Amino acid sequence: MGKKAGKQTFEISNPPTIISTGTVAGPFEGQGPLASDLDVIVSDIRDGQTTYEQGERSMLTKACRLALDHASHSISEVDLFLAGDLLNQIISSSFTAATLGLPYLGLYGACSAMAEGLGLGAMILDGGFVGSVLVATSSHNSATERQYRYPTEYGGQRRPYQQWTVTGAGAALLGYTGSGPRITAVTVGKVIDMGCKDPLNMGAAMAPAAADTIAAYFSDTKSDPSSLDLIFTGDLGEVGLNLCREELAEAGIELGDKLHDCGLMIYDRTKQDVHAGGSGCAASALVFLGHVYKGLQKKEMNRVLLIGTGSLHSPTSYMQGENIPCIAHAVRIERG
Amino acid sequence: MGKKAGKQTFEISNPPTIISTGTVAGPFEGQGPLASDLDVIVSDIRDGQTTYEQGERSMLTKACRLALDHASHSISEVDLFLAGDLLNQIISSSFTAATLGLPYLGLYGACSAMAEGLGLGAMILDGGFVGSVLVATSSHNSATERQYRYPTEYGGQRRPYQQWTVTGAGAALLGYTGSGPRITAVTVGKVIDMGCKDPLNMGAAMAPAAADTIAAYFSDTKSDPSSLDLIFTGDLGEVGLNLCREELAEAGIELGDKLHDCGLMIYDRTKQDVHAGGSGCAASALVFLGHVYKGLQKKEMNRVLLIGTGSLHSPTSYMQGENIPCIAHAVRIERG
Repeated sequence: MGKKAGKQTFEISNPPTIISTGTVAGPFEGQGPLASDLDVIVSDIRDGQTTYEQGERSMLTKACRLALDHASHSISEVDLFLAGDLLNQIISSSFTAATLGLPYLGLYGACSAMAEGLGLGAMILDGGFVGSVLVATSSHNSATERQYRYPTEYGGQRRPYQQWTVTGAGAALLGYTGSGPRITAVTVGKVIDMGCKDPLNMGAAMAPAAADTIAAYFSDTKSDPSSLDLIFTGDLGEVGLNLCREELAEAGIELGDKLHDCGLMIYDRTKQDVHAGGSGCAASALVFLGHVYKGLQKKEMNRVLLIGTGSLHSPTSYMQGENIPCIAHAVRIERG
Repeated sequence: MGKKAGKQTFEISNPPTIISTGTVAGPFEGQGPLASDLDVIVSDIRDGQTTYEQGERSMLTKACRLALDHASHSISEVDLFLAGDLLNQIISSSFTAATLGLPYLGLYGACSAMAEGLGLGAMILDGGFVGSVLVATSSHNSATERQYRYPTEYGGQRRPYQQWTVTGAGAALLGYTGSGPRITAVTVGKVIDMGCKDPLNMGAAMAPAAADTIAAYFSDTKSDPSSLDLIFTGDLGEVGLNLCREELAEAGIELGDKLHDCGLMIYDRTKQDVHAGGSGCAASALVFLGHVYKGLQKKEMNRVLLIGTGSLHSPTSYMQGENIPCIAHAVRIERG
């Protein structure tokens, strides 16, 4: 049975292994510097389907099947499916759950979905309820942009602090077989609202939530940055990552070159015009389950913290003048 | 530590108590037959706020505070907040989480939110991670109708099989103190898609999911309806409840007068023009956390099953011609 360490952090007594992962990325993401760490780069943003939304769920289903294939697991060996995404009513996740036919709990944490799922999956496994959990998430540039902002076809000029929603999907199979990296602790975030009202500047909105959760992790575990090799935020982008670093430094937590952002890692900003970096559920899913997971397997790193960051607004809420509330969930992963 | 019983059901080894509940309903729901079992009936559908959405989250926050007050718990004694609702990006839940300042995991299961939260809360408590969990959900007729269908001001004629989205909010405090009803088992649903495409006929769409989960519960626990006093579906309405009853009877599971639907219980259809009954996250939250919870406390019943039912479509998905995928999660609650 897990135990609480401090106010927000849970230590996993019997840490589950991330047995395998599956990653599927869009064509633009396939031009990025981490493409060789991803399983599949699709050539069509609709992935052969009629709509962007169908394309997103097609990639999500593929990512789930790849994770199972890589572990030589059949679908019937999976006990529980945890998933969430950015589309209204998380339709990518729910339609994928229908296709897979697994017992399913839908999650919503915006772009923190992968960290929320990995954390909750580890807790349910540690509780002895199941032997394996499949966790998945996705995002799609065209489907998300038109839902939250403008259709991409509109070609509106983007502001320098805006980020580019990543097209892709990632899935992770958790359980107690194999010898991969293990999820050893989870820090559940609080919703932080610092008064930011600009839905185009999500990095700035999310930075205080990321800093709050990172500070809670160190406080709860009575540890400092020397205990971790690397720290990855989900999708703060350049603006958010700098703010997060500054806020933590002011609180006496100096992360230096240990702190990286998945949204900044997935694209080459000297060649790809993504402004402040990548965003979306798939940013951390692809970078973490592709690149970082392989780094842990290759023993390039031993102990890392992933902080999934999510902006919890809706178009309705910001058009009604509300602030942008944000959250960040952290999972600590150690080489098995 | 919990244990799996069959494919979808988890037996809770150390069942948590539903220590207290809080229920807040809209004025129309206050005219229904169960009004005396609810804590607060607001007189204004916006609950004194400017927008319907703010009104919904105001009721949700009140329900959470009522649950804490009824248990004489301070907010700082709560370890985790689990919530979900119907509005895009579950803004009611996330804004309430910001107000409460609690570690928060956002859920999405459409109208199955309360059952999903109670089930997951019981699993996390049984896993030994936390000592108390606050679970909450809400729905709002005007906010939901305009998001999914038409603004209520439009006054469109409603079809006989349509249901009426319940305005209100419910919260439950789970933990290991007190002597109230206990959550003893959880059946996690699968997404069921039987080809229904009409987003106005959600009872028919959800009925097969409810029947699937009820059948899974009996199969997994190797029990039959004689083991339960009463069975409550969330919001199938008249059309869906009849279909669910028929489908189960065809599978040899006769529920007779043990089967009830929260959506049919909350309104007096001879006086309130709600067509096929109530729907929305608040239907099961108000009926279960108000009426049924009190019935368990008064020893009018001993062992009941709540089956939260959710329709997982979005306006985008059905306008793109997709089917309506549905889910149902069950929790067994026994008098403490």
